[in-house]
Amino acid sequence: MTDLKNDRFLRALARQPVDRTPIWMMRQAGRYLPEYRATRAQAGSFLDLCKNAELACEVTLQPLRRYPMDAAILFSDILTIPDALGLGLYFEEGEGPKFRKTVRSEADLAGLNQIRAADDLGYVMNAVRTIRRELNGQVPLIGFSGSPWTLATYMVEGGSSKDFARVKGMAYDQPELMHALLARLADAVADYLGEQVAAGAQALQIFDTWGGSLSAAGYREFSLKYMQRVISKLPTEADGRPLPVIVFTKGGGQWLEAIAACGAQAVGIDWTTDIGQARARVGDRVALQGNMDPAMLYASPARIREEVANILASFGHGSGHVFNLGHGITPGVNPDHVTAFVDAVQELSPQYHQG
Amino acid sequence: MTDLKNDRFLRALARQPVDRTPIWMMRQAGRYLPEYRATRAQAGSFLDLCKNAELACEVTLQPLRRYPMDAAILFSDILTIPDALGLGLYFEEGEGPKFRKTVRSEADLAGLNQIRAADDLGYVMNAVRTIRRELNGQVPLIGFSGSPWTLATYMVEGGSSKDFARVKGMAYDQPELMHALLARLADAVADYLGEQVAAGAQALQIFDTWGGSLSAAGYREFSLKYMQRVISKLPTEADGRPLPVIVFTKGGGQWLEAIAACGAQAVGIDWTTDIGQARARVGDRVALQGNMDPAMLYASPARIREEVANILASFGHGSGHVFNLGHGITPGVNPDHVTAFVDAVQELSPQYHQG
Repeated sequence: MTDLKNDRFLRALARQPVDRTPIWMMRQAGRYLPEYRATRAQAGSFLDLCKNAELACEVTLQPLRRYPMDAAILFSDILTIPDALGLGLYFEEGEGPKFRKTVRSEADLAGLNQIRAADDLGYVMNAVRTIRRELNGQVPLIGFSGSPWTLATYMVEGGSSKDFARVKGMAYDQPELMHALLARLADAVADYLGEQVAAGAQALQIFDTWGGSLSAAGYREFSLKYMQRVISKLPTEADGRPLPVIVFTKGGGQWLEAIAACGAQAVGIDWTTDIGQARARVGDRVALQGNMDPAMLYASPARIREEVANILASFGHGSGHVFNLGHGITPGVNPDHVTAFVDAVQELSPQYHQG
Repeated sequence: MTDLKNDRFLRALARQPVDRTPIWMMRQAGRYLPEYRATRAQAGSFLDLCKNAELACEVTLQPLRRYPMDAAILFSDILTIPDALGLGLYFEEGEGPKFRKTVRSEADLAGLNQIRAADDLGYVMNAVRTIRRELNGQVPLIGFSGSPWTLATYMVEGGSSKDFARVKGMAYDQPELMHALLARLADAVADYLGEQVAAGAQALQIFDTWGGSLSAAGYREFSLKYMQRVISKLPTEADGRPLPVIVFTKGGGQWLEAIAACGAQAVGIDWTTDIGQARARVGDRVALQGNMDPAMLYASPARIREEVANILASFGHGSGHVFNLGHGITPGVNPDHVTAFVDAVQELSPQYHQG
């Protein structure tokens, strides 16, 4: 067990008492930071940055130098697994991620590479090890993966999608093929996350960015079920402590009860859900993470502080809350507004943890 | 009171007994139909099509010639009001709508045109009158508008947006300015919808496409409140019957109870909400409209039929349901799949209306 200087984040996930509400931000290492843009320019492509352990470590640590975040998160892409499976991930400037190959048939599925994360995604594990060493116990390190359904949407569509016509057509019309793909992905994700833990990750987050595009029944069948499968295959400990897993389905607010029963220790919620109501619905079973609207960071520092106060008051007294945005920070945000955000959580939350 | 040959849609909205569940489709007059594409090519630009009463009538009636829909909906754009206010709406091929001017200050707001829908949006009223005449009582005609908040997003951003940085920044930081804009829009929308009723619309739908991008509190403050204001100013009768108003907030499933209390007779729900659960939550107060995933139309006719059966069974017995998609039909759908969809609703729903 590492001598962790700040374990507030892990304690909140375990719903143990803390002195204040811990905070980190989805995409905290990102384009809103000028030092990130400088390192990114030095690295070459986005994928070059992900594959260079020293530079990936550098951008992971950058937000911690500016802000007293209570956790670091591995800098990587959510599409590393499909890339290793042989689809050929690439990025075109100003557009989303794209794949050279897609998966739309039994033959496409059979043609995917057999992978072992320790070997085929070794560059990610190198980054995890490097970051853990450089963090030196300052705060815990979060590993992550996209959810099986979210990975499948990119693999079937060949990139981002507005209406998910192909992947949903496949899910609705060829459910056996879709389930075979999702099972394959769930096993790959479990292997990948397990190796991240072996390399030093102390908590895990599953990003289910596109689960919210499904119907209520479709979500249970195609997304939640496979996150459950992933979680059931993960190690139960990391570094001598129970391993916490956070599941974040963007747009999943209507399905919180089901998500809270999937085996995760914490559920991330976006800003469309009132966090007090979410706590009333599921807070005796899981910790909650969230949920300020990322667009609130475009408002003034005073307004940001007011919104932090609203969210803290809505959650109320006691542990079990990890403060975060309701989705990733956007590139246009002024870094000084993040200072106001983090300071507000630090300064206003202790009153909810007294006695 | 017009001698309406088919009033199933109006009866379902009033939760009066019907012989089967009525159906129409959001964007039923649209690009998935080859005859629409032909008329659109003939018209010139998209706005030219909206402004030509004969051609707007033609495309409104096209889906009714193919499918036994229980309602027609005025063919128009949701951004006609901001255009009339002076912002200069235009479309670039392959991109969303854009405005030449934006509203980001008191001065911008003060510079908007003073409009009267009867004059400045007279082309819409001409289309309504033409369609009513040509429909000749076949089915009721739905008029519509974008919600104040949805119109404001385009007016502040200058077009479509991914993260609504500007409009939310304004809402969060300059709430007085945003409320002044929304009040102005609510009054314009009420005038516009009232004139549509005067011209012949027999039901109204308010499309709140972007209300779901707000936080729970933000939705009540910036979107729902102004739809309430619109509804409170509308006539209560159309054509000798009570005027039904349908409010559709995409992504509003978490807020159904609040939406059902806004004064509308019906609430549209997207496919992420289980319609049976929605009925249990609010079905004693309003009718429900929806909610098949539009992407289901990419599946086989057999699968579409199965999904229609699922939704009918979830809603259960009795009136108060208008079948629809959970959002607009997408351009890539095969028109034969729409046949399967409409036939399934016609054939499978009577059993839920017996006794």
